[in-house]
Amino acid sequence: MANEWATFGADLHLEVRGPHLRAGLMDALREAVRSGRLEAGTRLPSSRSLAADLGMARNTVADAYAELVAEGWLTARQGSGTRVARRAEPRRTEPRKPPPAPATAVRSRLTAPAHNLKAGTPDLASFPRADWLKAYRRALTAAPNEALGYGDPRGRIELRTALAEYLARARGVHARPERIVICAGFVHGLMLIGEVLRGRAVRHVAVESYGLGVHADILRRAGLGTPTLPFDERGTRVEELTGVGGVLLTAAHQFPLGGALPPDRRAAVVDWARASGGFVLEDDYDGEFRFDRQPVGALQGLDPERVVYLGTASKSLAPGLRLAWMVVPEGLVGEVVAAKGAVDWASSAPDQLAFAEFLGSGAYDRHVRAMRLRYRRRRDQLVEAVAAHSPLTRVSGIAAGLHAVLALPPGTEQDVLRAAAWHGLAVQGVNQFRRQGVEPTLDGLVVGYATPPDSGWQGALQALCRVLP
Amino acid sequence: MANEWATFGADLHLEVRGPHLRAGLMDALREAVRSGRLEAGTRLPSSRSLAADLGMARNTVADAYAELVAEGWLTARQGSGTRVARRAEPRRTEPRKPPPAPATAVRSRLTAPAHNLKAGTPDLASFPRADWLKAYRRALTAAPNEALGYGDPRGRIELRTALAEYLARARGVHARPERIVICAGFVHGLMLIGEVLRGRAVRHVAVESYGLGVHADILRRAGLGTPTLPFDERGTRVEELTGVGGVLLTAAHQFPLGGALPPDRRAAVVDWARASGGFVLEDDYDGEFRFDRQPVGALQGLDPERVVYLGTASKSLAPGLRLAWMVVPEGLVGEVVAAKGAVDWASSAPDQLAFAEFLGSGAYDRHVRAMRLRYRRRRDQLVEAVAAHSPLTRVSGIAAGLHAVLALPPGTEQDVLRAAAWHGLAVQGVNQFRRQGVEPTLDGLVVGYATPPDSGWQGALQALCRVLP
Repeated sequence: MANEWATFGADLHLEVRGPHLRAGLMDALREAVRSGRLEAGTRLPSSRSLAADLGMARNTVADAYAELVAEGWLTARQGSGTRVARRAEPRRTEPRKPPPAPATAVRSRLTAPAHNLKAGTPDLASFPRADWLKAYRRALTAAPNEALGYGDPRGRIELRTALAEYLARARGVHARPERIVICAGFVHGLMLIGEVLRGRAVRHVAVESYGLGVHADILRRAGLGTPTLPFDERGTRVEELTGVGGVLLTAAHQFPLGGALPPDRRAAVVDWARASGGFVLEDDYDGEFRFDRQPVGALQGLDPERVVYLGTASKSLAPGLRLAWMVVPEGLVGEVVAAKGAVDWASSAPDQLAFAEFLGSGAYDRHVRAMRLRYRRRRDQLVEAVAAHSPLTRVSGIAAGLHAVLALPPGTEQDVLRAAAWHGLAVQGVNQFRRQGVEPTLDGLVVGYATPPDSGWQGALQALCRVLP
Repeated sequence: MANEWATFGADLHLEVRGPHLRAGLMDALREAVRSGRLEAGTRLPSSRSLAADLGMARNTVADAYAELVAEGWLTARQGSGTRVARRAEPRRTEPRKPPPAPATAVRSRLTAPAHNLKAGTPDLASFPRADWLKAYRRALTAAPNEALGYGDPRGRIELRTALAEYLARARGVHARPERIVICAGFVHGLMLIGEVLRGRAVRHVAVESYGLGVHADILRRAGLGTPTLPFDERGTRVEELTGVGGVLLTAAHQFPLGGALPPDRRAAVVDWARASGGFVLEDDYDGEFRFDRQPVGALQGLDPERVVYLGTASKSLAPGLRLAWMVVPEGLVGEVVAAKGAVDWASSAPDQLAFAEFLGSGAYDRHVRAMRLRYRRRRDQLVEAVAAHSPLTRVSGIAAGLHAVLALPPGTEQDVLRAAAWHGLAVQGVNQFRRQGVEPTLDGLVVGYATPPDSGWQGALQALCRVLP
């Protein structure tokens, strides 16, 4: 015991130097108890004697003891001195699941490929830092104090007003600020609307044959079935919408296949929603980026009471901002707000105000225009390079967005993906986006030409050409 | 028909002036179809003739028609001209619920009281805008591009590292960055941990007799029962924790009653968790603000594997930032990350980096110190004023935090609240925080002395004194 304490005291001496003697002593004592070096019931030296040992003021030690008694580490009883508290033996519980898989970003950093053409991320090097900072500074400087408090669960009115104007102008969305709800990304919005539909006794929300697995997962987590819509050479077929209460569509630019929903099908799906009381969930993730013509307006304009419009700054600015928005039918606003919770737990108020300023000042329009030119140039270069290097490969889909599909000869996708991995090129095949149960009929690569910075684009393009058949 | 069109054309003429002729024309046509002014099947004038009517270039009109065909508003068939598309009759569905109740913030603005002493919000006028902006600018300027992409669902490593250091130093939290998860407010964290516990087949999480209703609601939304723990003059009793898998505690400063959990009960609740395999959810909402002594360290330090620590910037900085953090037992990290979703849909990366910079630069410590002095002064003034004006009222609870409880003579709370409302003073009674089923045994006011700006504090204090018995 004496020995044990002496050793411990010596250790302590090493650890509690520095300006924060009391805190250091407390840390060392906590750690010693936690690790078992100081066992339950052990009587500690008097504060006077430990202070002398450690060359501290007696009060420092006495204070540390008092703190640790208050925290439950030690007990102090008249006549019995200060002792390590007796604790129940911990019941060792093992983690239920294996240790967490590293997040995608972490994993990709661990095995970082030389070139990245995975779709889904804009060119982050082009994020307009100076303009964004200017908007942020202006917005935070001008914000009323109440903006920093708990707010309207729909989000800041300044941002909802700016978005209403922008969405009407740029996307033909019929939006009033009252029915706009700010959320922390498309995924957050989809979670909310999934919960709302489930609460309305909707059982199934149809999804496209190809899409992001995480989106269907989110609907399923809300308790919804996700039957798959068939597709043909004109895109997703919407004639067979029976037994579903909603349908999730990338109408302006199918993800990942790259087509636009033809006019008759746009009309048909809205007509289905009107006739059945169902809802169309319009995932307008990259609607601003059309290169061959003006973007087709949003489906939502056709019937704002039956289409839930979901937009995001993740493709136009940066996913790291976690800014997205929903334009919700009037009859659903209350339910969406309820699902979001009584307290707004989404985007920060300064960010929302900064984005409102960014939109209102025209900086957003300028940025989108600049990126449209840049992505268009990259897409043109992709089309040229593919034509020059791979007569068997065809760029399919409309000239739009941040990605293109390269249609490959039947049966070659897996080989091309293996070759890409071998050459340090991160890229995905269309079949990685194929929903379960959908017949494999396509071979192709989904090329996110927006992903690399300018400095990495040519290299990535060359690597791509090397692996094409 | 001709008449109708002529009128409509005249309207159009009014609406489509300005630089964006084509967009204006499209908007006007969409609106006309939507409102029924242009009926389904109506044949539109040729683009040449409408262009002449409107004084536009023919191409502008032809383009607008083509757009609206692509969007599904119009149809164009060889020989039949351009017509308004035939649409299914909308099925009018009424909203399920009454229109959304205005959010708390909105509602309180509508009937804005002259003085606000409701607890839960710090003095927003003291938000360190200049220092925060400086941190934000530095952080965004220095951030690598990848920081703007989709990130680790736990949050930015820079922030988790800064928090690990801060929490160990300021709150005695045993934290490694790997087990810290950033979330968009305490509520978000509680939702996640509720989902995780439910997924582990936990059926009940005990809550304190007094607390925020929204917290119990969140646990219940996760499918958990919320039995209430009894309390006595020493605070929450934790001896009867049977049949529950978790317990939500405000150990450092009970909300709203204002006591600190005594050392033996701190030890007992951790011992219960060890012995039973349960979890303590430690809501450390204002742990940095203790005025009479150094803050008692967090319960989490006693057993990091059995205590989930939840902290927030909502009280120390501003709720509008939506920044909070959890320190999670190692065995739960994977499940919390899974609950958070594959994509990080919480706080923006620039905000997280700004907060990391704010912590690392010492600006956070300085701000907390300044606010501690300010709130301490206000609390002292409150104690003095109450002593001077109301011999029947007693300030109870420890000298800590952003609120105090004024214990009132039995049976007087309702009268005092009515008087407060009459005098334009927003303040709440302890019984507004009493959980359902808990016997009413206390009368008191929960006074959020942090809420008003400096300029409003003396007036609020005087209004309070006027309504005390």
